[in-house]
Amino acid sequence: MSAALAEVDHVVGYAPYVHRVPQREGLTRHASGNTVEVDRAAFALDLARRGERVAVVSGGDAGVFGMAAAVFEAAEDPAYAGVAVRVLPGVSAVQAVAARAGAPVGADFAVMSLSDRLKPWEVVEKRLRAVAEADLVLAIYNPASRSRREQIAMACKVLLEHKSAETVVVVGRDVGRAEESLSVTTLGELDPPSIDMKCLLIVGASSTRVSPAGVWTPRFVR
Amino acid sequence: MSAALAEVDHVVGYAPYVHRVPQREGLTRHASGNTVEVDRAAFALDLARRGERVAVVSGGDAGVFGMAAAVFEAAEDPAYAGVAVRVLPGVSAVQAVAARAGAPVGADFAVMSLSDRLKPWEVVEKRLRAVAEADLVLAIYNPASRSRREQIAMACKVLLEHKSAETVVVVGRDVGRAEESLSVTTLGELDPPSIDMKCLLIVGASSTRVSPAGVWTPRFVR
Repeated sequence: MSAALAEVDHVVGYAPYVHRVPQREGLTRHASGNTVEVDRAAFALDLARRGERVAVVSGGDAGVFGMAAAVFEAAEDPAYAGVAVRVLPGVSAVQAVAARAGAPVGADFAVMSLSDRLKPWEVVEKRLRAVAEADLVLAIYNPASRSRREQIAMACKVLLEHKSAETVVVVGRDVGRAEESLSVTTLGELDPPSIDMKCLLIVGASSTRVSPAGVWTPRFVR
Repeated sequence: MSAALAEVDHVVGYAPYVHRVPQREGLTRHASGNTVEVDRAAFALDLARRGERVAVVSGGDAGVFGMAAAVFEAAEDPAYAGVAVRVLPGVSAVQAVAARAGAPVGADFAVMSLSDRLKPWEVVEKRLRAVAEADLVLAIYNPASRSRREQIAMACKVLLEHKSAETVVVVGRDVGRAEESLSVTTLGELDPPSIDMKCLLIVGASSTRVSPAGVWTPRFVR
């Protein structure tokens, strides 16, 4: 990752991530707002088409609810045919939260975004039901935002139709940053208004348990 | 990760991973066979209980079908009460394969092990159906082993009951090693006998597509 960043002429991305890349001679940093992923990607592809070397940065893993899919989306434009795209993996937010908690995703799991900005709520709800019925551990990205405050309560209601109120839930906030916090609760006790855009949730399978050593999901199903 | 490995007295794990940790004075490397995860974890906890500092290593991310859950499983034994366990995340195999292919897990996805060594096949099949019906991207760990050759064909059959034969499938083999290879096929064209224990599969959602720039799944569902 550092090697790739050392070789580029431009860094493009959401401001907090761009600012983590140290300034150096020959590097131009382009910081943008959130929620303009495809514009940002097209801007990067424009630079690359003109022969510049460009890195688009994300938090966590760019391939997991990061900028990678937005870059491929923008690259569908024939204007960018011939621009080479390479994705470098990183540690995703779900893995950072899981490791801090113990081993909650130690068995089959699903990863979903709760945002209905890019898909209808009916699709979110259908997927929540499928994951709950199959008793998969579920990591939830984007559980809330400034404008989306109701979804997490709606999601809990849907999950509680298929899962026990005793199901273990891990709430990670700002994990990997100085102000990080982690709490362990249950699906029945989870307080939706306490969940904001900085949170990532891991909702356990029926077998997920809390031990003195940490939260973990057995590898086996008996 | 390197900082943690520099501080331990012992490294414990499956031989190929243990041998990646450079030998140094004061470090004892304990290499074991595969498929004895909990014995290996108990061995590590025994050392730790006697005051030794021990690292248990896995390939990819220890928290994703790696050794972390096995360590927590062994740590349930009251003999190990008081042994502190800390998990450090890494880049999992699914992320390594995804990044090499493009952005196939750019939307909601599930990660499953196809092995029926630790869960009944009926559970595997039920989960495959749920994931397929919910149109999640699906990463498949342990698609085959020396003794398990039939599961991947059975899984394809189940998935084809719910998904199109045109569904994009990425097959990564030994990704991250010198001998790595990657191929892109479809669910209908996938050749089960070609899949072995070194493979990780990513079965696309209905929207997953192959572009000149790579394989990607749109973030949106319309």
